[in-house]
Amino acid sequence: MTLENPDLAISQAAELLPITEVARRAGIPEQALIPYGRDKAKVEVSAVPQRAEPGRLVLVSAMSPTPAGEGKSTVTVGLADAFTLLGTRAMVALREPSLGPVMGMKGGAAGGGHAQVAPMEDINLHFTGDFHAIQLANNTIAALLDNHIQHGNALDIDPRRVQWKRVLDVNDRALRQIVIGLGGPSQGTPREDGFDIVVASEIMAILCLSTSLTDLRRRVGDIVVAMTRSREPVTVRELGIDGAITLLLRDAMKPNLVQTLGGTPALVHGGPFANIAHGCSSLVATRLATSLADVTVTEAGFGSDLGAEKFLDIKARVGGLRPDAVVLVATVRALKRHGGAALDRLEDEDVEALQTGTANLRRHVENIRRFGLEPVVAVNRFPADTPAELEAVLAWAARQGVRAAVADVWARGGEGGTDVARELLAVMDGRGGEDFHHLYDPQDGIEASLTRIAQDVYGARGIQLTDAAPAALRRLQRNGWDRLPVCVAKTQYSFSDDASALGAPQDHVLHVRDLVPRIGAGFVVALTGSIMTMPGLPKQPAALRMDVDEQGRAVGLF
Amino acid sequence: MTLENPDLAISQAAELLPITEVARRAGIPEQALIPYGRDKAKVEVSAVPQRAEPGRLVLVSAMSPTPAGEGKSTVTVGLADAFTLLGTRAMVALREPSLGPVMGMKGGAAGGGHAQVAPMEDINLHFTGDFHAIQLANNTIAALLDNHIQHGNALDIDPRRVQWKRVLDVNDRALRQIVIGLGGPSQGTPREDGFDIVVASEIMAILCLSTSLTDLRRRVGDIVVAMTRSREPVTVRELGIDGAITLLLRDAMKPNLVQTLGGTPALVHGGPFANIAHGCSSLVATRLATSLADVTVTEAGFGSDLGAEKFLDIKARVGGLRPDAVVLVATVRALKRHGGAALDRLEDEDVEALQTGTANLRRHVENIRRFGLEPVVAVNRFPADTPAELEAVLAWAARQGVRAAVADVWARGGEGGTDVARELLAVMDGRGGEDFHHLYDPQDGIEASLTRIAQDVYGARGIQLTDAAPAALRRLQRNGWDRLPVCVAKTQYSFSDDASALGAPQDHVLHVRDLVPRIGAGFVVALTGSIMTMPGLPKQPAALRMDVDEQGRAVGLF
Repeated sequence: MTLENPDLAISQAAELLPITEVARRAGIPEQALIPYGRDKAKVEVSAVPQRAEPGRLVLVSAMSPTPAGEGKSTVTVGLADAFTLLGTRAMVALREPSLGPVMGMKGGAAGGGHAQVAPMEDINLHFTGDFHAIQLANNTIAALLDNHIQHGNALDIDPRRVQWKRVLDVNDRALRQIVIGLGGPSQGTPREDGFDIVVASEIMAILCLSTSLTDLRRRVGDIVVAMTRSREPVTVRELGIDGAITLLLRDAMKPNLVQTLGGTPALVHGGPFANIAHGCSSLVATRLATSLADVTVTEAGFGSDLGAEKFLDIKARVGGLRPDAVVLVATVRALKRHGGAALDRLEDEDVEALQTGTANLRRHVENIRRFGLEPVVAVNRFPADTPAELEAVLAWAARQGVRAAVADVWARGGEGGTDVARELLAVMDGRGGEDFHHLYDPQDGIEASLTRIAQDVYGARGIQLTDAAPAALRRLQRNGWDRLPVCVAKTQYSFSDDASALGAPQDHVLHVRDLVPRIGAGFVVALTGSIMTMPGLPKQPAALRMDVDEQGRAVGLF
Repeated sequence: MTLENPDLAISQAAELLPITEVARRAGIPEQALIPYGRDKAKVEVSAVPQRAEPGRLVLVSAMSPTPAGEGKSTVTVGLADAFTLLGTRAMVALREPSLGPVMGMKGGAAGGGHAQVAPMEDINLHFTGDFHAIQLANNTIAALLDNHIQHGNALDIDPRRVQWKRVLDVNDRALRQIVIGLGGPSQGTPREDGFDIVVASEIMAILCLSTSLTDLRRRVGDIVVAMTRSREPVTVRELGIDGAITLLLRDAMKPNLVQTLGGTPALVHGGPFANIAHGCSSLVATRLATSLADVTVTEAGFGSDLGAEKFLDIKARVGGLRPDAVVLVATVRALKRHGGAALDRLEDEDVEALQTGTANLRRHVENIRRFGLEPVVAVNRFPADTPAELEAVLAWAARQGVRAAVADVWARGGEGGTDVARELLAVMDGRGGEDFHHLYDPQDGIEASLTRIAQDVYGARGIQLTDAAPAALRRLQRNGWDRLPVCVAKTQYSFSDDASALGAPQDHVLHVRDLVPRIGAGFVVALTGSIMTMPGLPKQPAALRMDVDEQGRAVGLF
């Protein structure tokens, strides 16, 4: 194990079970298994016997993160291993990492330390190709659309009103705003355009929300790609390629089976970001897991204001899911940050900043309670945390009447997660998710839904439609798309649309600058503040430290 | 078997061997096998015992094609199955299909009828993800390059002299010429740019020409992506990401094992187009095949003027390969077309047009002989061919002293290929490839090499440097890059750079409009005529007829 890169070293040193043994433990019969190498497989869901009553579902959310992340995937994996250690038949359902952040700021997204899904190298690099299939399906729609315009434009598409963008699984700011179709009549029609990152693609959302390949085919057909010159919507079905696009996504729709370092079966499938998309792994994977395991632990990206809100208002609505318990991952580091500590001082003991920063965590606790659920705070332990700091968090939680425990899963794997797991079992043996309800009713209209989220979850005074949003709202209303759930794109660093407003900002205004209908996904994306659907790379991207050794093993993959 | 789509129906009806049994037949030990599903695998080459003396190598080329293609992959597969039937330990080495043409004009590229590699659905759709890995590696370089410019530009890259383009595996003409980096200082530096298709990427060429992962890493580092403001080359190594890019390509470097419908082991790996790239499957796959099989049948794209010339002058030079025999695939259809028959009359008997069209085939025969090799003409039989037409081709070949036989492999599989296989065995039992030599010596300089190819292979009077080419040549000379082999990008429909000049045009001039150094690949691309490195889609793309049935099986994939 090298000091620089313990996650990779721990993963490479691990003895993994053959994937057939993982499947056996999970209750997946061999004929349902499509192996990808020796330790990964896709699952043919229709060949897995479903039981009548689904198992329990634990949703892992978090407080507002620092740029380095608070280890939500790590806690999710560690908790699943903790349930396994406690003798429960457990599974974990995670999102697939995007190569954009892997090569950029964040590095891998397979958990960390002794709480990882494995093989982390493969999961972080291409995996079973799902994101590539989504990229290609997305870009095939774009090419066929521009080709339709080129060859006579029978549908009378207005080139100024194409809303379908191309995507790449790369952080590439230079592609955010471009002009395409230059070079003369044989090279298409010049128009403004731009690329998003794959994880923001509507295809990604559709793959994650579809209940079957038939449902996916219908949703792909429903995608609105452009408007005609007479302002009528043009769909993928009208382009005549809903079949071809579904064919391109056929294998990507099958959940991927891997394992945790603790030997717990893991489904890693789909991966929309939670700031610019709906932030939850696939519904088919969640359903498969709950149909097999007694406890499924799954995560939704970033804080309760992003992934959890969307899990509970979008994914749970589509899939008829009801979480039985919710975890809020907190860290001493993030609490100090929200209490005013500088980013480069987060390793210094500072109980006062931590106390101040609990305002952020308290808002997340309140947010989960607004859905009729009672959260358990998991304090994800970092090496620099002091006993006084950890004690201060637990004492705060006790004063607030919030269940809380330390999760020491990075260092100790499942054993470090049993305290949190026991709290979760206590919640589930109580009322669990019996009082769960959604936050808003889409029938009240987009503005009402957005206002409800802004006020109740973000602590805002209200919303303001700016830039393209007022016209976009009229378009939604004219087309009857204003009664859909809303997927807010917002910075993960603040409850507000201003990334620098830490803690628990109050009475701010949520600035909504555009409303993008995603008819196939079944929601409207509200773009707030300056959030970008194509990230950029930092000055020193993670790619600079990566390599392959003589044996073909990854080096420098965090 | 449906009338509309027999290739797919034949493939779906076939009983495939488990990939472990295919590997056993090929002599690949189980520990070298990385399964992808039940009937595909990647091969860990280092775990395969190599024998001292490589087996024989048969190269399949063709006459100049019609737009529908002359069935070169079909004949390649059928011949391998014929060798298997004749009791020879045979393998086939093919390129992977690109999804651009699969969705566009051409449809699948896994052979046809009873001469296919299987499973054709998977091979034609994503396969084991190699092209996606190449796409991502290529585009990660582009993003890191623009990011370097954005964050201080320490290497002093001239944004006007970036030569590294992004790629997609989609036919997308609207991306040929674009402007990126618009929208202000946080979105990059505005500059002209464009996308190529994945199969034209230098990364594809490098993957196909590298002898090992170490060699690939060196070549990736050597890639020149841009020039500085003082006109010095900037490499991927200087960007500091040769390691990361190699890591992204690690699995893609492993050859893919599948099978023919006749049960012959097949390596399908890499896939540069032969008109806009070097047109040959990977060197590692060819070497693996010849180290295992007594006869390896491989193809190079399009005619002797494109894939074969590049196989013999580029791939064979890099890999120290020597073909023992060469096949020229001819069809009655293409002969009539080159003799003046209209595209919509190719099913009508027309012996006179066919006789005239033999001028095209004769040039291809002469071309192969210029390399010291003696070709065998394989007349790939189509349903509409009449006995008089087939007889006319064979009689012509007899008069010319060219070995020839009919290949009826689409209808009859390997059995339909034994006549051609016996001719090949006769060649190989004679002088075989003993007199093989390259056409030109790169040390004579790019202009001399290009002139030699233009005169000897294309029948041209000479070459003319137009547009950007004269300045590009000076740049090559200044940097010492003018002694590399040349990879000509030229239309496949004609020996000239004018797609409408059929037959065997003489005394034309080859117009070279640009010379692009591909230092990592080790050659210079000469762009001729109006050939595009990003294809467009036709008015009725193949995607329009594709679908998935209730059982998740492909529909309409040709």
